[in-house]
Formats: sequence, C-alpha cells, structure tokens
Amino acid sequence: MPKPSTRIATLTGDGDDGWAIFYRARALKAEGREILELTIGEHDVGTAPDILYEMHRAAMAGHTGYASVHGIPPLRQAVADRLSAQHGHAYGPANVLIVPGAQAGLFAAHHAACDEGDVALMIDPHYTTYPGTIRAVGARPLAVPARSEDGFQPDLAALAAAAPGARSLLINSPNNPTGAVYSRDSLEGIARIAEAHDLWVISDEVYDSQVWVGRHIPFASLPGMAARTLTVGSLSKSHAMTGSRLGWVAGPEAVMARLVTLATHTTYGVPGYIQEAGLYALRQGAAAEAAIAAPFLRRRQMVLDRLAAQNRVRTIPPGGAMYVMLDIRATGLSGIDFAGRLLEETGVAVMPGESFGQAAAGHLRVALTLPDARFEVAIDRLLDFAARI
Amino acid sequence: MPKPSTRIATLTGDGDDGWAIFYRARALKAEGREILELTIGEHDVGTAPDILYEMHRAAMAGHTGYASVHGIPPLRQAVADRLSAQHGHAYGPANVLIVPGAQAGLFAAHHAACDEGDVALMIDPHYTTYPGTIRAVGARPLAVPARSEDGFQPDLAALAAAAPGARSLLINSPNNPTGAVYSRDSLEGIARIAEAHDLWVISDEVYDSQVWVGRHIPFASLPGMAARTLTVGSLSKSHAMTGSRLGWVAGPEAVMARLVTLATHTTYGVPGYIQEAGLYALRQGAAAEAAIAAPFLRRRQMVLDRLAAQNRVRTIPPGGAMYVMLDIRATGLSGIDFAGRLLEETGVAVMPGESFGQAAAGHLRVALTLPDARFEVAIDRLLDFAARI
Repeated sequence: MPKPSTRIATLTGDGDDGWAIFYRARALKAEGREILELTIGEHDVGTAPDILYEMHRAAMAGHTGYASVHGIPPLRQAVADRLSAQHGHAYGPANVLIVPGAQAGLFAAHHAACDEGDVALMIDPHYTTYPGTIRAVGARPLAVPARSEDGFQPDLAALAAAAPGARSLLINSPNNPTGAVYSRDSLEGIARIAEAHDLWVISDEVYDSQVWVGRHIPFASLPGMAARTLTVGSLSKSHAMTGSRLGWVAGPEAVMARLVTLATHTTYGVPGYIQEAGLYALRQGAAAEAAIAAPFLRRRQMVLDRLAAQNRVRTIPPGGAMYVMLDIRATGLSGIDFAGRLLEETGVAVMPGESFGQAAAGHLRVALTLPDARFEVAIDRLLDFAARI
Repeated sequence: MPKPSTRIATLTGDGDDGWAIFYRARALKAEGREILELTIGEHDVGTAPDILYEMHRAAMAGHTGYASVHGIPPLRQAVADRLSAQHGHAYGPANVLIVPGAQAGLFAAHHAACDEGDVALMIDPHYTTYPGTIRAVGARPLAVPARSEDGFQPDLAALAAAAPGARSLLINSPNNPTGAVYSRDSLEGIARIAEAHDLWVISDEVYDSQVWVGRHIPFASLPGMAARTLTVGSLSKSHAMTGSRLGWVAGPEAVMARLVTLATHTTYGVPGYIQEAGLYALRQGAAAEAAIAAPFLRRRQMVLDRLAAQNRVRTIPPGGAMYVMLDIRATGLSGIDFAGRLLEETGVAVMPGESFGQAAAGHLRVALTLPDARFEVAIDRLLDFAARI
C-alpha cells in the first residue's frame, strides 16, 4: 500500500477522537446491558412524520434527479428569510449554500478561509470535530481557552494574543459542550479582534433555536461583521432532522460563489427530496422549533433542581443548547475517570469534558436527550455516584 | 471581506467550469424554448417507486437519526458482496465506506492519496470535475492524453513519462465522456506504471453496469492492485438514483480507517433511510441494473445506424457508459462553436468535447438520455446541421 497523505494520517492529532466512552457504551448495549445514554446530541424523538411524508411526496413527484448544487431556490430563500429575521439585515438566496449537514458546512467554510499551514483559531472547550476539520483543510488549529470560572465565555485577552497571523476564528454560540450563550460583550470583543487581524469568523449557530437565558445574537448581525462571517446552520437540532444531513453556509456573495464551486467538487449537492422536506419544516415556523426545544429546557431545570440539593457537583446553568456541563472537580476524579467508572458501575453514559479540549477537564457533558423519567433516573445515579466516591 | 483561500480561489483553474452550454440550454428552456437536452448524465426516468417506498418505510420506521459514519453494516456488506463478485477476490465491510455520492468519494480518495503540492495524474478527456477535485485537496492535476485515434485508450508511454514523482492516478472505465472501456492491455500497462512509481490508483467505476462491448475489468482485480487502489462507485447510474447522493469508496482496510475519520470531519455520514433504499436497490440484483442500462444500449445503436448513412460525423463506437462521443472535426468547427450554434439554431444541447479536456477538442459528447422518439429527432437535427455547414 502506498503511504496515505500526511494530512489524512494526522487528522486526529494524537489519534484519539474523544469518543471512547460513546463507543464503550454502545458496545455494552450490544452485549445486552441496559445503558442510559446521555452522550450524543440527538433528540429522543425522530423526525416528525409530516416532514417525512413531505419528503416522500417530493420523491414520488419525481424530485429524484440531480438537484441544483447551490440548493433548490425556495429552500435557499427560506433560509435567507430565517437569517434576515434573526440578523435584522437582508439576506438573499445568493448568500446561502445548502450543504449536506453543518459538518460539511464547517469543512467548506474552513476550506474557503484557510490555505495549507495557516493558523485557524477556535475556542476550547469545543465540539470534538473542530480540530480535525481544520486539519482536514491543511490548516493548524490553535485553541484559545474559555474558562469554567468565566462561565465559559471566551477569554478576549488570550484571543487577541493568539490572533496575529491567523486566518480564521471558529466560534459556537449557543455552545456545545458548555451551553454558554455568548454575551454581547464577548461578541463585540471578538468583532474588534476579527477586524484588527482581518480574520474570517466561522460562526457555528446550529443551536440557535435552543436558547434558555437571554436571546441568541447571531455574530454576523454585529456592525460590519456580515462581510467577514460565514454562518453555519442546520435543521438537525432545530427540527430533529439529524440523520437527514441538511444544513447551510451563509456569507458574503463573493465567497458564496467560491463555495458553490467547492460543493461541485466535494459533494455535488443535497438530495432534492430532502431539501423539499427541509423547506416544509422551515415553513412550520418558530412554534415548531420551540416544540422541539421544549424538552431540553424542562430537563435542564430537572438537573438544576437536583444540583441545588447537594454541593459536590456544580454547574454553570447553561444558557442554551441540549447539554449541561457538570463540574466534578470536587470528586478528585478527572472527567475521563469519572465517566468511565460511572458507565461501568451504573450504566449511565456521559461524555468526559476532556473529549472537548483541555479547558473542560474535570467536567462532564450531559446530553439532555432521554425521556424525562429515564433522564431523572440517570441524573440521580450520577449524583449518587459523585456523592459516594 | 478577508481574502478567500488561494486553494478555493483557484479551484477551477482558468475559471471556466466547462458547463456554459448546459447553463445556456437551461436558460433557453426557462424562457420557454423547446430544448432537446443531451448534456448531463442523467436518466430520462426517475428513481423507481419501489426504491422510494422502501426509503419512506425506513424513515417512518425511525431511521432518521445519525447513521453510522462508516455506513450501515448491511449496506457495506452488500457493496462488498457486489465488489467480491466483480473482482474475484473477497471484500468485507471494513473495505467499504459509504459516502454521499461518487463525487464525495473522488474527493476523499484524493485527500487520502495527496498532500499539498503533490502531482495527481488523470487521463484527458476526463469528467469535468476531475481537475477541480484534485485542486480541492491542494494537489496539482497533470493530464495525460488518450487520443481519439487510439480509441481513447490511455497513452501508456505518455503516462510512464508523467508518473515519476506523482502520488496518484485517476482512471475511469467505462469512461465519461468517451465511452471507452479500457482493454486488459491498457489496465495491465497502468498497473505496471503504478507499481513502478508507487502510485495510488483511484478508479472511478460508476458506469460498471453499462458495458456494451466485452466486459468490465475492475482495476483492483488485477494481480497486486487491490493494495494500491481506491475504487469509487455509486448507485447513481446503475439504479437511476443520481439525486440521492449514495456511493462508496473501497480499498485496503488500513486506508479505509483513515477515510472514515475524514468522513467524520467532512460529511458525517449519509442519511440512514437513503442507505436502506440503496440496500434494497442492490438486493434487486443484476437484472434490475440491466433494465436501467438497456435504453442506453438501444439509443447507442440508433446513433451508430444513423452515422453509417453519412460520412461527415464519425465516432468510435462506445464500449460502455451513457454517452456517444462524436468526432466533428470534418466540419471545421470546434466542439464549442458547433455545440453553441447547434443549440441556438436547432434547440439541441450537447456538450462540446473541450469541456472535458484538450484531447477531446473537435468532438461532442452526446448523452443518450432522452426517450427514443425525441432522441431520434435530436440526432437527426444534429446530423442535418453537420451536413449543411
């Protein structure tokens, strides 16, 4: 076998993709053990039947051939309308590229921003794929911490120190894994740094429909920022369409034309019937998105109520997204050790903070993704376990 | 706006993606003109209803969450079985990654083979996306001609001369745009060159179910070649599932593990319900594939019969695929001029050979993709036009 490219061989850095606990939980499940899974960001409900009926209708109506690589015009318009309403300035279809999921959008956005060897900034803790996504385009990830003590808001001084020479900055608010919703101060500080160092800002806003405290401020809505921001969005979290791989990148028209060309050479578009289903889903409006989000707010409160009755495990109440980050440093265990023992001893699977970077060491990410009764059992087991070690 | 990456800005080389005629034809159609389109490789029938029903069944059964990034095990097994039967040696699921269409497979394969600045060989004429796909991973495409006079078989001497220092070679048999099916001599010559220069061979075999003369020889079936070949396939052409974006990359297990990691960071898998539909389609067996291919063989013969009655337009009878390449050099026009005037004057849209590289200049690629009666009209108009200029 010839040598694979250095780029693909070094994609995961140290080779650990951070998902060991998840795979272990799935293996135990396959062995027949009852596991309470609070690992991945996936709803406990599937995609709504009316969305699936619309998909089938579109397919049976003949929408099974190559769809426009840009995305079908009415879906691009619907996404533009959603962005216009959020941002307070006008988006058009030419600002929107439909992509097969937000992960494809993050990859494409970094491809558009960075050449080989360029530095791409990101915030730690971060979603597990971020460093590998940056390496996949040949760029070098540089993580800037957001500390638990600061409520996981980004450290602007550290960011300013890291920015010289960088090409891009990847942000994510509401944040996975921390649940932090970036404050206006944080976002304005980021904007000043982006301007001073001529950075592309790649803003992953896939949790924009899940905000529990305050409101979502899209980064590109800040003065001057639309011209340097690539916003990545999707229907995965907002409409429980994770498996359908339907998302978008939005940005300045001149770079969108480049991104269409990249799409022609990497994915060649998204199935037309899935786009029709997504269009139908978006047309159900904000109430439909709120209905999908509601269980996570409810379960978030269940966690906060239980945490209030003890003092071994702490949290910063998440402002958004479908996770709660727990600080278990008082137990003396690392997140990896805690999560590993919790799984083996109690059958509850959560993600160690270390899966998401160094700044989340000694924490756990708990996904709010089991039906309430089972979720309650899982949290009780976790807190019992923390109390007795 | 910050500067986009040089890589994305130079993706199409001279900036012409070769599809001007196609877009012009669609524009005329949108204006209400009746256009006979023989441009893109898309069947005149949509995906079969039974495949779509199976997709809907899988979706309604709840297969709407994240599917395994590798692809669902039974589909990987079904693809492995199809490859084992074709190749005469055993493939297993670990040799197969499911990807969202062959274009994504071609991109991933080049990513696995080439680093920034590496030379990636390809044969001219070639499918339009090939050079941009290579540039998208930062590599440099180097085209080696296959001449009309040689029946568009690759020029082995030229290939051997170009190979030193290259990392990969992209081949495509049955070939788009020429219809050439590579002979055993051609393939064995390529194998010797690949071995001598330690090349990855990326073999695009998406037309493997459309062979009219002789039989398809998968490149990886040649002695020793499985260890250096990444075979790209899809259900687009074989099962009229173009819009569903469902394909695969198959190769040595050690590199497949790398490709799964790349998929995690670029596409994050393929919708589970589409994979279930693809599994159902593959289980219909070879007869179903033959039924999809039959109209192209019939229309190929219609072209050959008409060409026999004149001597201005020539062809090398295509051995496979859904196209006929016409040699119109006797008219004194370039392919671009001929196709442009043909469209404006007769409403027939075909692709100029120049869209597919320099070696196809003075040729036209005619897709066999209209129902027979309309196809006949289009060919008659084309030959009339050729006769009178």
